[in-house]
Amino acid sequence: MRFATLEVNGRQFVAAVSADGTQYCEASRLFPGFDGDMHALIERQPTMEGVTMPTDGLQPLAGVRICAPIPQPRRNIFCVGKNYHEHAKEFGRSGFDMSAGKGEDAPPAPVVFTKPASTVVGNGDDVLAFPEVTQQMDYEAELGVIIGRTARGISKAEALNHVWGYTIINDVTARDLQQKHRQWFIGKSLDTYCPMGPFIVTADEVDVGNLTVQCWINGELRQNANTSDLIFDVPTVIETLSAGMTLCAGDVIATGTPAGVGIGFKPPRFMKSGDEMKITIGNLGTLTNRVK
Amino acid sequence: MRFATLEVNGRQFVAAVSADGTQYCEASRLFPGFDGDMHALIERQPTMEGVTMPTDGLQPLAGVRICAPIPQPRRNIFCVGKNYHEHAKEFGRSGFDMSAGKGEDAPPAPVVFTKPASTVVGNGDDVLAFPEVTQQMDYEAELGVIIGRTARGISKAEALNHVWGYTIINDVTARDLQQKHRQWFIGKSLDTYCPMGPFIVTADEVDVGNLTVQCWINGELRQNANTSDLIFDVPTVIETLSAGMTLCAGDVIATGTPAGVGIGFKPPRFMKSGDEMKITIGNLGTLTNRVK
Repeated sequence: MRFATLEVNGRQFVAAVSADGTQYCEASRLFPGFDGDMHALIERQPTMEGVTMPTDGLQPLAGVRICAPIPQPRRNIFCVGKNYHEHAKEFGRSGFDMSAGKGEDAPPAPVVFTKPASTVVGNGDDVLAFPEVTQQMDYEAELGVIIGRTARGISKAEALNHVWGYTIINDVTARDLQQKHRQWFIGKSLDTYCPMGPFIVTADEVDVGNLTVQCWINGELRQNANTSDLIFDVPTVIETLSAGMTLCAGDVIATGTPAGVGIGFKPPRFMKSGDEMKITIGNLGTLTNRVK
Repeated sequence: MRFATLEVNGRQFVAAVSADGTQYCEASRLFPGFDGDMHALIERQPTMEGVTMPTDGLQPLAGVRICAPIPQPRRNIFCVGKNYHEHAKEFGRSGFDMSAGKGEDAPPAPVVFTKPASTVVGNGDDVLAFPEVTQQMDYEAELGVIIGRTARGISKAEALNHVWGYTIINDVTARDLQQKHRQWFIGKSLDTYCPMGPFIVTADEVDVGNLTVQCWINGELRQNANTSDLIFDVPTVIETLSAGMTLCAGDVIATGTPAGVGIGFKPPRFMKSGDEMKITIGNLGTLTNRVK
């Protein structure tokens, strides 16, 4: 199943979306009496066993505002840095990484920072340039993991049973701030710097270890990789994060970006007002945003 | 005024506490009809002008459970690292800091990371040791800032008008995880790793640039400094954080710890089960927690 948070006439609601991404119905058609947001759906329906998408009476999705699937995450988004080998190398070479060990190409353990919920925007929403704050905006296409069950101390073997679904995240980054402030939080956390969506595809329909990750800037293919190249795979990230910290239903984990970001070029190619960022990941759909 | 979140017979409520910290009344005595949590009070009462503490009919605070003043912050706690010169040096010497520039004693700009709300505990609550995850628990006494007005782009000159009050924070840290994971989030974010309280003292009663910060471990004075020694003072931190990110009413900022943490000793002195951590900051009270 794929779910979205839609907005019609100012009302936000959770919708089930057809596999081809063109039609929807309100989630209450699948779950009679349901009237909550995506958090409520995650808590109510830990799995999709026995749930099927209706084929009749669907509405066209065209022209409907698609919000981020979780428009207001309850906690900061957890983000893994330097989690593809080629990207770890390009980041190291760029001189923007202040937290690598000496001569270290790949980190010895998952590198994690966060972005606040105020960064989240949906498919089609503008990403603000903040020219008075940064001159070095960059894009990062990433697989997003949505946690379904609250727990601590989750083992690798059990980890995927704690995943509710997957989405696309653009971990937009102000490289000058990321470098200047040493820890990455500030450079990652400007308002609108976390486009997410358009859908959450539930875990039963996703082959998480084999998803193409592609990103186009103004139509030019910049990132083109596969989640099989992740240094720390999703089970490892979940085991690491939950070792001493409770992971909660509805938590969002951005798993890291592959090579091909703006600072991978010489000279670096930063985003400017009007640029279009488009990301496709496997069967998760396409997330498109423009810099304002 | 000083406010606390108390719990009596399983009911949590916001209370006003007498200046000597021994008596309280429910906040509804000061604000008729008020029945919310600390977030609601911050939103309702941006300033304390004209508000006075009753002197009669108060209840004794002894024996009452004091929760963290904001038991469930709505967003991760913002934490500034390396914000006292002597601590920046001891941290650099310790070898645990993976994000310093080469030969750099003090950072060129505020270093910011976050801790999730699930780390927050109150005065008297246990801090969990997690011996299966870390062998290097350390303490960090810090002034905590509570934001009162939601805004972006706050100037230094205006910054203190956006502060609702101050509290004490113990930014407990797993040093081995802080080092191993490069970015500091994981080492800072184990459940119970953010004791906070016991009170919020409103901004009108706090001389934020001149507060003693002291921390005792099992009765031994380890940290002893003054907020006048901060590298980046509270207005600078607020201006920096809010430059492109909306700061929200109820947000909590931990402003950094002075010298004297466990890794400042040779060999390092880490916390163990049963150890008592006690922090006093100016007129903000005393925050005491034990490692379990």
